[in-house]
Formats: sequence, structure tokens, C-alpha cells
Amino acid sequence: MPLPIEIALEEARAAAARGEVPVGAVVTDAAGRVLARAGNEVEARHDPSAHAEVLALRAAAAVRGDKFLTDCTLTVTLEPCPMCAQAIGFFRIRRLAFGAYDPKGGGVEHGARIYAATSCHHAPEVIGGLREAECGAVLRAFFAARR
Amino acid sequence: MPLPIEIALEEARAAAARGEVPVGAVVTDAAGRVLARAGNEVEARHDPSAHAEVLALRAAAAVRGDKFLTDCTLTVTLEPCPMCAQAIGFFRIRRLAFGAYDPKGGGVEHGARIYAATSCHHAPEVIGGLREAECGAVLRAFFAARR
Repeated sequence: MPLPIEIALEEARAAAARGEVPVGAVVTDAAGRVLARAGNEVEARHDPSAHAEVLALRAAAAVRGDKFLTDCTLTVTLEPCPMCAQAIGFFRIRRLAFGAYDPKGGGVEHGARIYAATSCHHAPEVIGGLREAECGAVLRAFFAARR
Repeated sequence: MPLPIEIALEEARAAAARGEVPVGAVVTDAAGRVLARAGNEVEARHDPSAHAEVLALRAAAAVRGDKFLTDCTLTVTLEPCPMCAQAIGFFRIRRLAFGAYDPKGGGVEHGARIYAATSCHHAPEVIGGLREAECGAVLRAFFAARR
């Protein structure tokens, strides 16, 4: 069975093939079962909020019929932006695992540092740098090809 | 014709009647035309990301068939949370007008202060305190009735 980060990488590559910024995400439950997986759909939906993380969270909650994913892990190829970081908190995700760090757009270890803000009610356990080189390479290849 | 903040207040009251935290939002274009309006649908959708702002932004972009709302104003009854503040930036909203300030959950004038973060690429013009007392009263009445 592929690891969650491998599934997220598959979603990132599929997003790139659709002309989307290649970020992929997957929500797994406490037993490691995949509840939902998604890649970016910003272009296809004309929706800048359609980041992989938000789509995967929303789909996982729909599968469960429960707005809280308290026992779940979100695995994503890139450090989440502030919007996604806050959404991850709102869905009460237990653990966030991400691949590449994003000094420019990230909101977990950089920028707004959402989980460190006083207004943050739920912060997941955070693990960064999973398959960091591979996750970053997918993004760099995408942007290099567009220049 | 009602003002945008009056439309947002209507949406907030309609949300309260559905058992949702009463926040309402409306997107208007440069001519003041209403592109989309929404209230919170967190409970109905089992989706903690279904805040009024995100729903209104997504609907407005769908109406336009364009992911950027560069000429538009988002008017909302409560200071946006960090998730919504970042989404407002991603949709490139020109002006954000909000009603009540939210010292606990807000991400514009409080907490993560999204538009002040180094990772913020687009910050709207911000006007806070529109019909502040009325917007706050709708929220207080909702929570008082649930205690």
C-alpha cells in the first residue's frame, strides 16, 4: 500500500498534468485508511480557494458526515498556506504532515504562522519535510516548464 | 436598494434561523451590483470551511467565470477569520468592509493579521466597524439563546 505522502505526490503530479499548480493532499483516519484525496483545482473551478487541502478536508468530512476529523491526518506535498492552515484547524485535524517548506506562501512555519496566533483554537501536531526533495522537485519542474 | 451591509445582515439573520452562527456576506461589483450573497452553512454542509465569505466569493467567481474579483467589494457582518482573510486575498478582492470586530477569532485586525504577514501577496483596502452594533447584536443574541 502506498504511503500517504506517495498518494499526495500522485495527486500533485495529476494536478500538474491538468495545468494546476502541483500540490496534492490526502486525509487518512487513525487506522491509516484513505478517506479522501485531492489535487489543486483552482484553474478548473475558477476558484482560488480550491486548494488540495481544502478539497480533501471537505470530501473527508462528507464521507464521514461529520464536520470534525479529530482522529485524522492530513498529508500534503507543500506547507499549507494560511487559508488551508486555518481550515485544517477548523476541521480539528489531529496531525498535519507536509512535504516541501514554502517560505514565500506558507502559513505554518512561515508568514502568518497560523497555529502560533492567539486566535488559534485548534493546532494539529505538525511534521514538515516529508519527501521534501521529491515534493519540491515536482513544483520546480512545473514552474520551470512555464517560464 | 438595500446597502451591502444590510444584505449581509439579512443573510446573517437567515443563517441564525437555520441554526448557523449568524454571519452573512455579499460580493458587489464596481457598479454596486450584487454578484453573490451567502450566510454560514457550516452545520448544513458538515463543512467548517463553509463560512459566508468563502461561499460568497466562490459563487461570485462562478457567476463571472473568472477566478479574480479585482474590482469587487466583499461586505461581511463580522471581521473575517484568517482562513477567509487569506481567501479574500487569493480572489484579489479590492475592498473588504466588515461589521463587528472579532478579537477572538478575527484574522484581519487581530490574531494572525493576514494582510500584514510577509507571505501576503494581495491585501484589500479594509474598512471595519460598519453597522458594528447591529452586526454584533445579531451574534450576541444567537449565542445568548444557546446558553
